[in-house]
Amino acid sequence: MRALKSPTMECPSSYDPFAMTKAIAEKPRLSEAEFIAGFHAIGEERYHHKHPFHSLMHEGKLTRGQLQAWALNRYYYQKHIPLKDAAILARSNDPDFRVAWRKRIVDHDGDGKKPGGIEKWLKLVEATGLAREQAIVGDGILPGTRYAVQAYVLLVSRKTHLEAVASSLTELFSRSLISLRMDRMRQHYPWLAPGLDYFTGRLTQAPEDAEFALKYCVQHARTREQQDLAHAALRAKCDILWAQLDALYFAYVQPGWPPPGAFRPEERA
Amino acid sequence: MRALKSPTMECPSSYDPFAMTKAIAEKPRLSEAEFIAGFHAIGEERYHHKHPFHSLMHEGKLTRGQLQAWALNRYYYQKHIPLKDAAILARSNDPDFRVAWRKRIVDHDGDGKKPGGIEKWLKLVEATGLAREQAIVGDGILPGTRYAVQAYVLLVSRKTHLEAVASSLTELFSRSLISLRMDRMRQHYPWLAPGLDYFTGRLTQAPEDAEFALKYCVQHARTREQQDLAHAALRAKCDILWAQLDALYFAYVQPGWPPPGAFRPEERA
Repeated sequence: MRALKSPTMECPSSYDPFAMTKAIAEKPRLSEAEFIAGFHAIGEERYHHKHPFHSLMHEGKLTRGQLQAWALNRYYYQKHIPLKDAAILARSNDPDFRVAWRKRIVDHDGDGKKPGGIEKWLKLVEATGLAREQAIVGDGILPGTRYAVQAYVLLVSRKTHLEAVASSLTELFSRSLISLRMDRMRQHYPWLAPGLDYFTGRLTQAPEDAEFALKYCVQHARTREQQDLAHAALRAKCDILWAQLDALYFAYVQPGWPPPGAFRPEERA
Repeated sequence: MRALKSPTMECPSSYDPFAMTKAIAEKPRLSEAEFIAGFHAIGEERYHHKHPFHSLMHEGKLTRGQLQAWALNRYYYQKHIPLKDAAILARSNDPDFRVAWRKRIVDHDGDGKKPGGIEKWLKLVEATGLAREQAIVGDGILPGTRYAVQAYVLLVSRKTHLEAVASSLTELFSRSLISLRMDRMRQHYPWLAPGLDYFTGRLTQAPEDAEFALKYCVQHARTREQQDLAHAALRAKCDILWAQLDALYFAYVQPGWPPPGAFRPEERA
């Protein structure tokens, strides 16, 4: 058989929270610039800006029902973000780290006065024409969405703290995707406009968060093995985002059969 | 909006191992016959015998590369079965239960003389033309496969013991699927014949295991709430099997793009 040239081959290949971390052959430590460039190369290859579901979204080719399915399933991801961040918080003995990371929980849960990201996402759900209760109850969420999100919570709970922080670094890439998305949504789906506040917030939050996390990774990945694990964690997180869009594409775009029990848009019913 | 008629609506709707079990409104306890019939109704609706990937397999329409992808990904599931069963074993204080359940681990890991199910599945991988090492290392496994399998291990580790046992009841339905599969594999893919020992073993193992587990559920689901939770656990397990075939279908059948880093069959390269 042809030898597989998989980009994961030099790193922990099956990123499995139940498995022991494998020993990696001795390799020279990367310079700070190489280490950071490694994260960007992973994003270029694996971040979900290249997923065909996003291409259809940005070309205005998604139906309202498909956007409903996207908003509904992505809400399940959004509502787990503070749980994911609390798990990371719960593993740090450093008060300065905890203060910095706590900001993320406030961003998503709100401060009791201004709405947080979860509430804003419910506004997006409503803008698609679905009731917020449907998202909150979670009926019809795709199993593939649930499993990917649970894999994210499991990753930050079971892998090293460095890997947990590194897995957040998709935020390095989110600003330009969000800018493009907001632009194209206003153009192609103007009826979504009342629901775009979430993205406005993320335009500034995500780069701040990414800057802190990247600095943390640079400081704490002291060996080449740790550097490789940090890269692998970002790769694993990209897989988690990608798999959620795979599940949506397969269920709602082409060939388009939602699994038993999943949300069915009206126009397909 | 139209009210959704989801078959999950009367049961814990988002089967989430991180969530608290929800209170369920008082309903009359089901008779033993109704309770058992409920499991069979769930299998009829949700077991993966109806998945289009299996239809293609049984009609002889899968390529060798697609069967390789199936064997490779399903190996990841197979190798976690003893971990799943050990997690269930680890939660029981009843020696009789442990003796009975231990059989499953022996069936999959072998007894040091006769090969177990995992070794037999490696023979199937080899019959497809892939090296066993590729399955063992796990390069190119689809993220969707990993997440679904991890969700299964999480379910049996975090939900009640009754739900963990009930989730195994897909074995009530596996015998007829395996019989059909063996028949159609010999007909359409005769080159797979040296790899079919796994299925021969399961023809007798699965019904024995299912009988024990069903009896356990009948004895231990004493309230309607417990009966509903047991049904929901089987539904959740069906979702886990179904999602694995979704991931395969989406990556390798139509439209067919494996995510970055996943196995690529030769004929598509």
